[in-house]
Amino acid sequence: MEHRGVAAAALICILGFFEASKLRTVEGNGAPRAQLSSILDVNGDWHVHAGDNGGFIEMEIIGELEKVDVKIWPMPVEVVLGEKPLYLDGHTFKFEVANLPSVPDTLAKAFVRYHAIIFSLHAQHSGSSSPALTKLIVTLGSQNEELQYGVDESYMLDVRDSSDSNVAYLEALTVYGALRGLETFSQLTSYNFTSKSVQIRRTPCFIKDFPRFPYRGLLIDTSRHYQPVTSIKRVLDSMAYSKLNVLHWHIVDEQSFPIEIPSYPLLWNGAYSYAERYTMDDAREIVEYARLRGINVMPELDVPGHAASWGVGYPELWPTSKCIEPLDVSSNFTFDVINGIIEDFRTVFPFKFAHLGGDEVDTGCWERTSHIQNWLNVRNITAKDAYADFVVRAQDIAIKHGYVPVNWEETFHTFSSRLKKETVVHNWFQSGTCAQAVKKGFSCILSDQSSWYLDHLDATWDKFYETEPFSNIENKDEQDLMLGGEVCMWGETADESNILQTIWPRAAAAAERLWSTLEYTKVGHTQAVSRFQHFRCLLNRREIPAAPIFYGSRFAYGRSSPYGPGSCFKQ
Amino acid sequence: MEHRGVAAAALICILGFFEASKLRTVEGNGAPRAQLSSILDVNGDWHVHAGDNGGFIEMEIIGELEKVDVKIWPMPVEVVLGEKPLYLDGHTFKFEVANLPSVPDTLAKAFVRYHAIIFSLHAQHSGSSSPALTKLIVTLGSQNEELQYGVDESYMLDVRDSSDSNVAYLEALTVYGALRGLETFSQLTSYNFTSKSVQIRRTPCFIKDFPRFPYRGLLIDTSRHYQPVTSIKRVLDSMAYSKLNVLHWHIVDEQSFPIEIPSYPLLWNGAYSYAERYTMDDAREIVEYARLRGINVMPELDVPGHAASWGVGYPELWPTSKCIEPLDVSSNFTFDVINGIIEDFRTVFPFKFAHLGGDEVDTGCWERTSHIQNWLNVRNITAKDAYADFVVRAQDIAIKHGYVPVNWEETFHTFSSRLKKETVVHNWFQSGTCAQAVKKGFSCILSDQSSWYLDHLDATWDKFYETEPFSNIENKDEQDLMLGGEVCMWGETADESNILQTIWPRAAAAAERLWSTLEYTKVGHTQAVSRFQHFRCLLNRREIPAAPIFYGSRFAYGRSSPYGPGSCFKQ
Repeated sequence: MEHRGVAAAALICILGFFEASKLRTVEGNGAPRAQLSSILDVNGDWHVHAGDNGGFIEMEIIGELEKVDVKIWPMPVEVVLGEKPLYLDGHTFKFEVANLPSVPDTLAKAFVRYHAIIFSLHAQHSGSSSPALTKLIVTLGSQNEELQYGVDESYMLDVRDSSDSNVAYLEALTVYGALRGLETFSQLTSYNFTSKSVQIRRTPCFIKDFPRFPYRGLLIDTSRHYQPVTSIKRVLDSMAYSKLNVLHWHIVDEQSFPIEIPSYPLLWNGAYSYAERYTMDDAREIVEYARLRGINVMPELDVPGHAASWGVGYPELWPTSKCIEPLDVSSNFTFDVINGIIEDFRTVFPFKFAHLGGDEVDTGCWERTSHIQNWLNVRNITAKDAYADFVVRAQDIAIKHGYVPVNWEETFHTFSSRLKKETVVHNWFQSGTCAQAVKKGFSCILSDQSSWYLDHLDATWDKFYETEPFSNIENKDEQDLMLGGEVCMWGETADESNILQTIWPRAAAAAERLWSTLEYTKVGHTQAVSRFQHFRCLLNRREIPAAPIFYGSRFAYGRSSPYGPGSCFKQ
Repeated sequence: MEHRGVAAAALICILGFFEASKLRTVEGNGAPRAQLSSILDVNGDWHVHAGDNGGFIEMEIIGELEKVDVKIWPMPVEVVLGEKPLYLDGHTFKFEVANLPSVPDTLAKAFVRYHAIIFSLHAQHSGSSSPALTKLIVTLGSQNEELQYGVDESYMLDVRDSSDSNVAYLEALTVYGALRGLETFSQLTSYNFTSKSVQIRRTPCFIKDFPRFPYRGLLIDTSRHYQPVTSIKRVLDSMAYSKLNVLHWHIVDEQSFPIEIPSYPLLWNGAYSYAERYTMDDAREIVEYARLRGINVMPELDVPGHAASWGVGYPELWPTSKCIEPLDVSSNFTFDVINGIIEDFRTVFPFKFAHLGGDEVDTGCWERTSHIQNWLNVRNITAKDAYADFVVRAQDIAIKHGYVPVNWEETFHTFSSRLKKETVVHNWFQSGTCAQAVKKGFSCILSDQSSWYLDHLDATWDKFYETEPFSNIENKDEQDLMLGGEVCMWGETADESNILQTIWPRAAAAAERLWSTLEYTKVGHTQAVSRFQHFRCLLNRREIPAAPIFYGSRFAYGRSSPYGPGSCFKQ
């Protein structure tokens, strides 16, 4: 990838240059007040905060806006910034592709989205302000639009000083790198209330960026509560804003089976209701919507333990009508159905990985069911052996259909020697599992429940930020087996009405850990506070209801309401 | 308005026909479970609920879907339904206008919106199902697109039996009546998972409808928390779904002054931050966005008591720097600024009404300020007299600029004889104020804080539903002075991250009270439960995060999370 020769050496290299936290606590006479960080706005001459304090009004003149830098989340690998503003006229500004006969569909659609994101926050003045940026020209290394695990997401962004050029450049090897660059470009822009136009406040600006980990995931759970297709699409929109790239779709569980399976058409009788279902075409639409945002979708079948809803349509999958999970291990029909589901999934989900669950299996039901106990006796195996057999047989089916299987960590802890060597171990239950798994040569995904479970509302954002995938993994070969990590939005108490504010902003803290350099993030959450507040407000402006970061003087729990009146940038 | 001759007499007239509540409580062995109502889906042959009960799985076969009717919220005045389904093909279905040379802009944009609403919930099968509806033809009584208070919102909707016609008709006197009819039409549609297309399940269908009250409002407060323009637009989207028609925009208060006032350009220095502001063009865009949805925007200046933020830009508006509200009554500059604001507002807000606040005025500050106390002494008036003078002088300014003034009820209780006769009294504090006000010949808007304040989270939806604007008002002339009512979303603990789930679904309960006939709503909330649950899920599908209605076995507080896993239609 050619660097277009911006005179970077003449500018300040600011890896690690963004403001260290300048947290200070402001206490009124009454209740504790929110911690105030340095002011976050990228432009302006003044800032005033008027607070309500026990019925009396206290005016705090915070004074001159501090010269803070452009806020980008997650932090890019390298940023160089000048001091001159550039304006963008929404009526004339264009995105273009430089080196291809036609604009790839993925980019053409992204251009429309990012134009709207950049110019829709405030009414635009019709005249143009100068100096103006007229174009962002995208140069791609490849026209291939296939999205797969490990696709190159690197990019370089080069916004010149206006005396040099009124054109900016974005270079990427793939359309997916270009998407990441467009997101960063959009975060460079802000609204200037004097010129009434959009600006990039500090040019020249040069950014070089690429992700630390190839797997940066978010789990959603559509079994405990159905999420409308529209809701899943908004989750995908929001993921792109913090450069997450895998939607782990925990589609079915014991409570409901919302998806159509053409091979076994009665399965979705296990949905909560007639309306709370996804057709195969809905799933295809979700996968394509995700792809257009550079996001892979990993489907999950959580077998054999979390599967009671399967038997609504096919009761023979249940050991008995009173003991309905784990699925009947003694019946070939069980595996026929798993095969049918995975075969159908293969027509919808092109991702490298399929998740097969395997967690929280209570084999007591098998032991209490006479035909299964007989089956165990004939084979002279224990219920625990049967659990391993079940998981491995499901893995074989997934592999046959071209998937690499992912399993929750219990399978690793219980029978690691029987797992297929390509198995990806998915940590959730105990810290340190990934260190054990990679030592045995397995790949691993980190989702430590103590810090990366979004339904744990008391896991505050600093915990999400400080969780390190390389914790206790120092060997380079073992580090290479860490695919990345994933935050989990289990759905027991999350439906369409609160999923987004339960996910955000905390998921973004993990997203930075997974994207930005360890050199930057290891310094810890403190240096990121004001930039994180800024990103939360950016999400709010983009209609993503990210919850407050502070609640009074402490970090807020998940989906907290604001503590009291105040600025978005301080709450 | 001509009725197109549907054989209504041959069908069942179902005013009051919709199901009475069939609430039953299902208790598991463990924690209390959500109350289950009759199943709400408009189609299907089965319904199954699989619940999680303390680690064991309990499957409840609820059995045959009850034959419940199409669910419309708020309930129309008259509905006649047949039994035959009709299908709509998203690729070919069209909205048309019958009797005009061109489609009015308001309707052309509504056609695009409602096409998306109707067809975007699930992927559409490409072939057409039969019998099919090909068009909805709109006939308008007038091409006038001006939106004003009291505009006619009536409509008739006539979806024929397919043997009669494959065209449906919507008639309205105005484009705004047509908008209400389009909303109802959209609520008649649902997705058929067998044909994989949209259907209207019960035709022929004839609906005649008009609102009970001309003023059906929602207050939002952008001073305690700034709401991005995008957030206000989503509030407006959601209001249209329950046919609310006034956005009362409580723009400024003591905490912040977010809006640009060209006449006094330092006023918005009182914003929370550089970015948390609205330009005049933003406000114009909001007004136009609202108009396109048949919603008027009423601006509020809450003087003299809730105005401390004004003095950030102009400290001379404060009595002293330590005593900063009420605004200085002794200074002509105070009224020059009010005049400037209202004059600027007149270029943006064409609504009949402007709200001037007047509530919670503590005149102690005036009495403690020597130059104001001297001014009172010279005039030989009390601080209370000065409060009345202030309010009336502000009313004069509003009237001069063509507004009818609205004031919070304290002004009525404190000096009703001095209020301009056209004053609209806005109840909030005590029940019974409207009955007193209309008896004295004032118009009144009901917002009883005990039942219609959305920030009162313990005001459950049944309270919103049962609140009656005609309570203790029996005289017809006095009833005519009741303009309607308004639910209030005060912003102390509501920002972009939670405003929509605090408003919805409770605001919809008041919306039905204000739209539907008293004959229907006086029966009470019980008959509306399952239809209300259905409407909440409809909002969710349309990306409006309306909160659950039940929490366990009781009605949920405002913005409650789900109690546990379950169907949207039961929570």
